[in-house]
Formats: sequence, structure tokens, C-alpha cells
Amino acid sequence: MGKKLTVLGPGLLGASLGMSVLERGLFESVHVWSRRPETRDKCRTLPWCTAVHDSPEKAIADAELVVICTPVKIIPNLLEKLSKDFAEGSVVTDVGSTKGSICKAAQKNLSDKVNFVGSHPMAGSEKTGLEYARADLFEGQACILTPTDETDPTATAKLEDFWSQLGMKVGKSSPAEHDRIVAAISHLPHILASILCEQLTKSNPEWKSFAGKGLRDTTRVAAGDPNLWRQILEENSTAICEALKNFRGTLESFSNALEQSDFEKIEDSLAKGKTFRDSLG
Amino acid sequence: MGKKLTVLGPGLLGASLGMSVLERGLFESVHVWSRRPETRDKCRTLPWCTAVHDSPEKAIADAELVVICTPVKIIPNLLEKLSKDFAEGSVVTDVGSTKGSICKAAQKNLSDKVNFVGSHPMAGSEKTGLEYARADLFEGQACILTPTDETDPTATAKLEDFWSQLGMKVGKSSPAEHDRIVAAISHLPHILASILCEQLTKSNPEWKSFAGKGLRDTTRVAAGDPNLWRQILEENSTAICEALKNFRGTLESFSNALEQSDFEKIEDSLAKGKTFRDSLG
Repeated sequence: MGKKLTVLGPGLLGASLGMSVLERGLFESVHVWSRRPETRDKCRTLPWCTAVHDSPEKAIADAELVVICTPVKIIPNLLEKLSKDFAEGSVVTDVGSTKGSICKAAQKNLSDKVNFVGSHPMAGSEKTGLEYARADLFEGQACILTPTDETDPTATAKLEDFWSQLGMKVGKSSPAEHDRIVAAISHLPHILASILCEQLTKSNPEWKSFAGKGLRDTTRVAAGDPNLWRQILEENSTAICEALKNFRGTLESFSNALEQSDFEKIEDSLAKGKTFRDSLG
Repeated sequence: MGKKLTVLGPGLLGASLGMSVLERGLFESVHVWSRRPETRDKCRTLPWCTAVHDSPEKAIADAELVVICTPVKIIPNLLEKLSKDFAEGSVVTDVGSTKGSICKAAQKNLSDKVNFVGSHPMAGSEKTGLEYARADLFEGQACILTPTDETDPTATAKLEDFWSQLGMKVGKSSPAEHDRIVAAISHLPHILASILCEQLTKSNPEWKSFAGKGLRDTTRVAAGDPNLWRQILEENSTAICEALKNFRGTLESFSNALEQSDFEKIEDSLAKGKTFRDSLG
């Protein structure tokens, strides 16, 4: 069991992490800091918050593990601002859904005595905020660690162990490959769901009373916070533009086949899609 | 309670219908016919099948309500073939997911003494076949009836009552509007899920081990039967081509905004999508 874990920015992920860590006895204490006074007040009433701090510097003092759970956009700044305050020998990670710029900021700002490894636990929800936190949020979900050539393998192993103990299936990739992976399997699906919904706002509003489970599932993620997703898309726009370009090409071929009544090609496309989906389980 | 209901083509929908009808006591007996001898044999072992017939003509004799649950493509032929065999005064419907050509075939082939009204209970699943049938499949789901100017309102009212008693929320539209509705809210989402999966087959196969709940939900429908969906897309290709064209336009605007780093526009798009998705419930 570790002594002190610090969560910076206890939203859905951070709060779920705190609950889960205490429930599984992975750390003796969970310290938190939030930018917002209201969130700090709320945290003071929660059983899994050992201590709530008014500044991130105080929150991370002597912490063996610091997990930054703030919105992605401010993580690089936070790493810069706190660079001198992380405890010597501590492991620092984050839960941001893009990794390129965050890992670069860590590499640039942190001393050799602090071990940063990016994490991306893929366990969000379209609901954001503390109040939706659940101790089992991470169970059975995937987590990508993004060590670089300069990362201390011991730190990577510690984090691998940490996320595994929360029930996650941990994989590794470089920060750049991570960003291409999530562009393809998370950001592109989000954009499609969102654009499909935007498209449907242009139809007769009565049509939506006929929506079935298919449409609900397909578009569920579109209920995500627009500002949070704007930040994600902003951070990862290069990889996403590439993924979108490829998708639009495949969609164009399909549309052409449909217009030309080439139903052999249509069925072939659908069969390829089914094979992939079946393999996801 | 009615006396005799006949289900032609007991797959997922037809079998669920039979189970549900008997469980709720809506009809005294449920008669079925299936094209395949194996399915007929299976039906003979199922408690909700009152009688299994070797020909559709025998199955529909004296039935007050006939529900055609075969694949969409063969429904028009079946209506033509059985036109003289439906009982006088009976109500005939189908569960096909496109309605234009089916309703035209009914209008052309059936006598005035048989009352046809198209139904589209939107309660499928990516799983097809008898073995996945559930008595509660229809509960809480939407059903679109497609009466035309020539439909006897009494028949429409009877069917409205029938689907409501199975727990469905029943709405009405013309066959042509129905096809535009389902192109937008069911067929287009299916195509996007399928193309997304096809696109992902072109990536590193290891990437899919990182797939989260978001991708699983977004693409769930892509596991549907490719041949069945080919038929649906074939039947409804005009309305789908139109829906695809509109979607591709909206996606292109979004892609352009992303390439030009116009993140105000991106956030505005995401916000519109969220508003629609939230309104779906």
C-alpha cells in the first residue's frame, strides 16, 4: 500500500479514482485540489477525500503518486507551474485523452528526479463531474500508458501495476501513436455521433419520437460536454484530420456504390464492418 | 381477445411477437409458417406456437390478423402470391423496415376485403433469428404505421391498438415519409457505424484492444446481418442517398473547420449535437 496519492482536478475520473483507490486499499490517503472553491467544498463532505487543499502545491507535497485529472488543455501549464513542487522520486501521470503535447510539456519542464508517464484510462462517460463518480468506473476498461525513450521503466511498471489494480487492461504506445489510436477509435466516433445529431436537428423534429435503441446507442457519446470535446479535438487535430480524411474517402466509395446500385459492393462493405465489430466483442 | 394470429417468417421479430401475444393474452392461438423446414421443426417445440404450417396459405386461413415478418425483399412477392388467400375482413401487416414498395404491392394486389396497413416496429437487434426472441422486445419502443388515403381507418385503429398492447409507442406517417424518417434515424446511423468499422479494419489490428464503451456503443449496430441490411438499403436507396448527401455536407463543413482551426465553429457543432442527443433522452 502506498502512503499518499494526490488527485488534481477531481471530476468524474479523478473522483472515481479516489473512491476506487481507497476502496481497494491501494493508498493510505487521497489528497485533492480543485481550481473551484465549490468543488473543494463538495470534496470536504466526501468520505474518500482524506484532505482537500487550496493550492495544488500543497496538495502534491510528499505525494508518491500524482494523477492530474483536469481538462486536457490546462495539463501542460500545470506541469510547468508545479515542476519544482513534485516530490523527489514521485511518479506523476495524467488522465488526458491526448498525449503528444502533455508528454512534451512533462519532458521539457520536469526534473530527472520526477518520473512522468502519461496515462489514458479509457473509462469516461458522456456525463462529467464529481457527482457521477463510481468506484468501478475503471473495471474491465483499457488504459494506454505512453512512456518515451527517456522514461524510467520502473515508473512505467509502477503505473502499469496501479491501473491494473483498478481493474484496467493496460497497454503501451508512444505518445504520437497514442494520439493516432484515439483519433481513430475514440475521437472520430465521437465526431460522427455528433455530426449525425447535428444533421438530425435539420429534420422534422417529430421524427425523433421514432428513434430506437440503434440511434440512441450510436449517438450516446454526442451528449458529451462540447467545451471539453473542443479541447480534445483542438489538442489532437492533426491526427483527427487524417482519420476524418480516410473515413470520408471510405464513406464516399460507399455512397457511390449505393448511387450506382452496386449492391454487391455494399454487402461486401457491410460484411467487413460486421467482421470488425464482431471481433470487438 | 382475438382468435387467430398468423406470423409468416418467425425470426427475431416474429417469434418475439408470438411469445408476447400469447403472454399478454391478445390472441387465442398463434399460427406460423416458415420457408425453412428446420425453422418449422424448431417452432414445433416452442410453447407459443399453437400450430406450424407447411404452406403460408394454410397458415393464414381464417386468421384475423396476419403479420409478415420475413425479410423485406420478399414481402411484396408474398403479398402478391397470397392475395386471394387472406381471410375476408382480416387485417394484414408486416414488420419490414422500409414501407414504400411494400405498401404499393399491397395496394396493387389485395382486394378491398382485406385491410393492409404497413407497420414498422422499431425493435430489432443486431442479433437475428428465432433463438434471440424475447416477449419484452417491443416494450417501450416506437412503431410507425403507414396507412394511405385508401386505408380503412378501422384497420389502422385495430393495429394501433395491437402494437400499443405490446407496449409500443405508435406513430403514423405516409409510406414515403416513413422511408425518409428511417433513412435519417436508422439507415444512416447503421451505415456510419458500418463504415467506421470498415475504416478501422484498415488500421493496426492491435488498436482495437484499446476500444472503450464509446466505440462499442457507436458501432453496435454494425454487427447486423450484412445480407439483411443490403436488402434494406436496396429497398430504401433513394431516401438513403439523400440522407447520406446531407450528412456528408455537414461532415465536410466540420472537417474544414477543423483544418482551419476554427474551434468556435467546432464547439458550436458539438453543442448542436449535444442539444439533439439530450432531447432524445
